[in-house]
Amino acid sequence: MEEISIGLVGAGTVGGGVVKILHKRKDFFRKKLKLPIKLARIADKQLSLLQDLPTDDAICSADAQDVLQDESINVVIELVGGTTFARKLVIEALERKKHVITANKALIAEYGPEIFECAEKNNVSLYFEAAVGGGMPVIKSIREGLVGNDIFSIKTIINGTCNYILTRMTTEGLPFDTVLKQAQQNGYAEADPALDIGGGDSGHKIAIMASLISGGYVPFNQINIEGITSISKEDIEFACELGYTIKLLGIINKNSEDNELDVRVNPAMLHTDHILASVSDVYNAVLLQGDAVGQILLYGKGAGQMPTASAVISDVLDVSRNIIGGNEIRIPTDHYSSSNMIDLKSINEITSRYYLRFTVKDKPYVLASISSVLGKQNISIASVIQKEGYSDNSVPVIILTHQASEKGIRAALSEIEKTDFIKAKTQMIRIED
Amino acid sequence: MEEISIGLVGAGTVGGGVVKILHKRKDFFRKKLKLPIKLARIADKQLSLLQDLPTDDAICSADAQDVLQDESINVVIELVGGTTFARKLVIEALERKKHVITANKALIAEYGPEIFECAEKNNVSLYFEAAVGGGMPVIKSIREGLVGNDIFSIKTIINGTCNYILTRMTTEGLPFDTVLKQAQQNGYAEADPALDIGGGDSGHKIAIMASLISGGYVPFNQINIEGITSISKEDIEFACELGYTIKLLGIINKNSEDNELDVRVNPAMLHTDHILASVSDVYNAVLLQGDAVGQILLYGKGAGQMPTASAVISDVLDVSRNIIGGNEIRIPTDHYSSSNMIDLKSINEITSRYYLRFTVKDKPYVLASISSVLGKQNISIASVIQKEGYSDNSVPVIILTHQASEKGIRAALSEIEKTDFIKAKTQMIRIED
Repeated sequence: MEEISIGLVGAGTVGGGVVKILHKRKDFFRKKLKLPIKLARIADKQLSLLQDLPTDDAICSADAQDVLQDESINVVIELVGGTTFARKLVIEALERKKHVITANKALIAEYGPEIFECAEKNNVSLYFEAAVGGGMPVIKSIREGLVGNDIFSIKTIINGTCNYILTRMTTEGLPFDTVLKQAQQNGYAEADPALDIGGGDSGHKIAIMASLISGGYVPFNQINIEGITSISKEDIEFACELGYTIKLLGIINKNSEDNELDVRVNPAMLHTDHILASVSDVYNAVLLQGDAVGQILLYGKGAGQMPTASAVISDVLDVSRNIIGGNEIRIPTDHYSSSNMIDLKSINEITSRYYLRFTVKDKPYVLASISSVLGKQNISIASVIQKEGYSDNSVPVIILTHQASEKGIRAALSEIEKTDFIKAKTQMIRIED
Repeated sequence: MEEISIGLVGAGTVGGGVVKILHKRKDFFRKKLKLPIKLARIADKQLSLLQDLPTDDAICSADAQDVLQDESINVVIELVGGTTFARKLVIEALERKKHVITANKALIAEYGPEIFECAEKNNVSLYFEAAVGGGMPVIKSIREGLVGNDIFSIKTIINGTCNYILTRMTTEGLPFDTVLKQAQQNGYAEADPALDIGGGDSGHKIAIMASLISGGYVPFNQINIEGITSISKEDIEFACELGYTIKLLGIINKNSEDNELDVRVNPAMLHTDHILASVSDVYNAVLLQGDAVGQILLYGKGAGQMPTASAVISDVLDVSRNIIGGNEIRIPTDHYSSSNMIDLKSINEITSRYYLRFTVKDKPYVLASISSVLGKQNISIASVIQKEGYSDNSVPVIILTHQASEKGIRAALSEIEKTDFIKAKTQMIRIED
């Protein structure tokens, strides 16, 4: 039987995990599954990373070209990260007719069409299970397990760093900055946390999921992305008082009539009974709704060395089965092309329920003025909390609305912001069912 | 391109769902996925079932032989149920070199080796995603998505009828018989509910999962199966008071040292914080633990027309991809053979924490006697509740133990049962973490 020869580029955290699993389960793959998988080469600039790994017979070197130029290698695993060197590496591997496995969500979300078109042209496949949801089989479930469904809704907690920060803010009543600093100290947040807390990482993942369920290409840069940096201790406390939890959600809603896609990342208030409300700490979850299957939830660790390596290995087994079986392009990805771009619904066109926190001067008629502006925009109020004021003579006024249009909310807030009783920027958080 | 010609036998609830999805998503399968899937024949004794279904060009008849004898048919979907006619049908289809898709958990769990050996001999495959967990992609996740893992633990709520009954007993404080009757009236329980409430259905599913994660054949008849018929209103109330919920669980524990498998179905007390405790009504969930991925949860509807049909369709797409790609035996099942039988740990060899409810005469020294017998068996008490007595001068005494051996518990209960202060059979429920 032909051997499946694997070349790994990038032996950092996830790469190290991949090496460990390939070593540990080699016999299982060979004997039980009859897949003669061989880790033939490993390349990493930082050769010292390989010292403590069970690299077995793999030829180790510092130069990715050693992997690319080895004609015996069928599959390249790219775990370099970033979108510059990794992009060139993936394109070159595909052009050399090697299948590629990657965990690189930014690369797929931002350069998907270029990469998938290149794979198609060269008659090889690109596998990316590890790009979304770490160890949870999200991609496989959407493309295979749930293929009988029109998936019309996804709500997902897909960034562990943000979920960890929001969980600790909630359980310990701490402000954002304090928790972020602690998260950085214990390794739950990067030194530069912008991609996580700004929502970009969730945006990459939701872009990939949206492309999969729409059967086209959802461009990352058209997605409305809001991070968690504006979420205050007060918002968390008020949410709690109202029976809600604040989570950073990736959201996809497909309108069954016009197939219009609402794709976005934003902090959201979830009722504490909501199945996603209890997803805490670094755990992730993906809640899908299909027309046949109804609600399906996947829950697990969306990041970390071994969970992500587990997803990469799932791709290694898939590509090996496909190569051995002579069915190298088992799942076509040609829909993921720039000629098949999906138009997204503008954020202004959505409707939602809203949490609004106004910081106002403690004086008469303020609530009346706010309500009147909201009323003019057809926004109906579901509940109000007005508390004792802060020391600077300002008071928080919390309003939960019924279903309203984003356009109306934005117009109302813009008008209210201009009044002289507003003392700080108004907070707006969407409420999700 | 070759056409994939499907023959469906059994057009009842799930069969009807399969016909509907194949009709609704035909263009998607053909055009987007490039899989020319054709529902060529449908057979059902009760031809009238087909009247309201979108059967398109399928040739409908009352005789399964029409499907089996049609040489153009590549794939037979068996949705007849039971293990007599269905078994013959599946064997004959395989012998005629047709791939088979089935949702029949009893057939796989009880006759797995015969069927898989037959498939292997005839160089065709058997697909059974719908046999476990309805719409949740359980089989695919274990065999593909999590293939990089040694899955060493599964805890699962896998029978919707039992979960519905226990949920209603808990939320409404009703006794078992009342809820069962209501469940039968509104279609959540069969007229003959024995297979569900006795735990047999969960047993079939856990046998299949245990076979998959052990890489051998776990015989259904060696699994310790306890149903929910003994669970009383009082047990539910006491559980609640102690911060627990009672669920019927399928349980698999693999000991990493000796690979010994503990496989069983029993009612279990779960702390209300446990992720499975909040799985309510007809929902199912599978909590897996893998050495790489950690905890993974799948949650969804484990039964019902469209969720189960969704799983069947996932198999239809898999087999079609494999036929079109010329990779007809993509995932070997040869481990599922009688020559590869897995020995199970006897229930007497397990350890657990236990909930014990004694019904005793209201007189002195009773608690002392019970504690002393438990102590003799090395069973340490974690907490005790003794309440006001019942009208017949008996009192309930509830004891939660620390970790103890099943053997010790059984010996202690047998000794205690013989004393004259015991007024009714003692209830024992295992506590799961």
